[in-house]
Amino acid sequence: MQEIELSYPAGGLAMKGTLYLPDSLRPAPGVLVFPEAFGLGAHARGRARRLAELGYAALAADLHGGARLIEDLAAVMPLINDLRADPLLIRARAEGALAALSARPEVAGRKIGAIGFCFGGTMALELARGGADIAAVVGFHSGLATLRPQDAANIKARVLVCIGADDPGIPAEQRAAFETEMRAGGVAWRLDLYGGVVHSFTNVHADRMGRPDFARYDAEADRLSWNAMRDLFEQVL
Amino acid sequence: MQEIELSYPAGGLAMKGTLYLPDSLRPAPGVLVFPEAFGLGAHARGRARRLAELGYAALAADLHGGARLIEDLAAVMPLINDLRADPLLIRARAEGALAALSARPEVAGRKIGAIGFCFGGTMALELARGGADIAAVVGFHSGLATLRPQDAANIKARVLVCIGADDPGIPAEQRAAFETEMRAGGVAWRLDLYGGVVHSFTNVHADRMGRPDFARYDAEADRLSWNAMRDLFEQVL
Repeated sequence: MQEIELSYPAGGLAMKGTLYLPDSLRPAPGVLVFPEAFGLGAHARGRARRLAELGYAALAADLHGGARLIEDLAAVMPLINDLRADPLLIRARAEGALAALSARPEVAGRKIGAIGFCFGGTMALELARGGADIAAVVGFHSGLATLRPQDAANIKARVLVCIGADDPGIPAEQRAAFETEMRAGGVAWRLDLYGGVVHSFTNVHADRMGRPDFARYDAEADRLSWNAMRDLFEQVL
Repeated sequence: MQEIELSYPAGGLAMKGTLYLPDSLRPAPGVLVFPEAFGLGAHARGRARRLAELGYAALAADLHGGARLIEDLAAVMPLINDLRADPLLIRARAEGALAALSARPEVAGRKIGAIGFCFGGTMALELARGGADIAAVVGFHSGLATLRPQDAANIKARVLVCIGADDPGIPAEQRAAFETEMRAGGVAWRLDLYGGVVHSFTNVHADRMGRPDFARYDAEADRLSWNAMRDLFEQVL
């Protein structure tokens, strides 16, 4: 496997992502990996590495610019709230990553998917809502709400969201609104819902937040959601 | 693979099921297969056969007694409605099948799961709500409503339900009530929800009903739900 630091512009920011490439001389399907709200860190990089081991050219994408990692939730939430207030800003950051990955010879002529965790899942979904030419989107404990639900009609990707049924950040009403949005948009979508599971279930360090009722690792939901993503990518990428 | 006609009593009826056994000299995990509302027919038998090919001792269970198949929906619905009015009646029919399978030397000492399609999925769920000693339940386009939601506290099985998001027979409110029931009962449960999919998505002959907005085969939802069942059984049986 090869690791390449990749600088690219997105939404007016100078982004610094990391591209993980499989050991193959032929172009591979590409996957964008959008990180949690804190920014590009070990979790998203680890997932991108695993994707490269599976044969995908995976770009661990930047979120805040300069590969900034903002570990203080109180500091990062105002930034996230500004983005949530304008989905076009979110899409611009994601589209920059897509343009950077699409331009690579290692993915030439191959399809591209996008995944994301927490706010990164929202980024992947917003990328799809913007009409991007991607074949699949997977959101892991991804915020499902958007201020532009009507844009679901633009979605070309197959959509899979994997959600903890007891995630306080993604309540049942938000899931129901997403369902309505997907149906109205004529999207090919699915939802895998895990009982007894809360936010951040893919992140083994979720307990660092010290709020186990809100964010908690769940090995079974992590395994199920990752396998569901693999299956989808095998079908469409 | 071996096929054995199996007579057993259940809920006051003389049941006639078919046991499908893998080619193995050692006891295998057991699976009860409950058919659609029409009664034990080719669909449930076919699934039991596939389970036996996977190494499970699978009992294609009777529903109406005497292996009666009632293909006229108008004739079968009053029978189903009588059962729905008293979950204990449903459980009695399922419990008879469980007792019959449990008594077989081919499953001695091994765990048992239960699956079902449409009303058969409801049967599998009611079996679990009755506190049966089963390790897993999978409902495929299974009715989720019950008149005894408080009994979810008795459920020992891991529960997976696979539902079409656009199934008119299992509307969003019914899914929401099921979620509330499972949470209140402390059940280990999950829901796989397929966008654009309606009722009977596992049945290639669903179109015979002539109501494609209500019942329609869906190859992808069939594949996904069957694989989700296989994965669950590999984990717990």
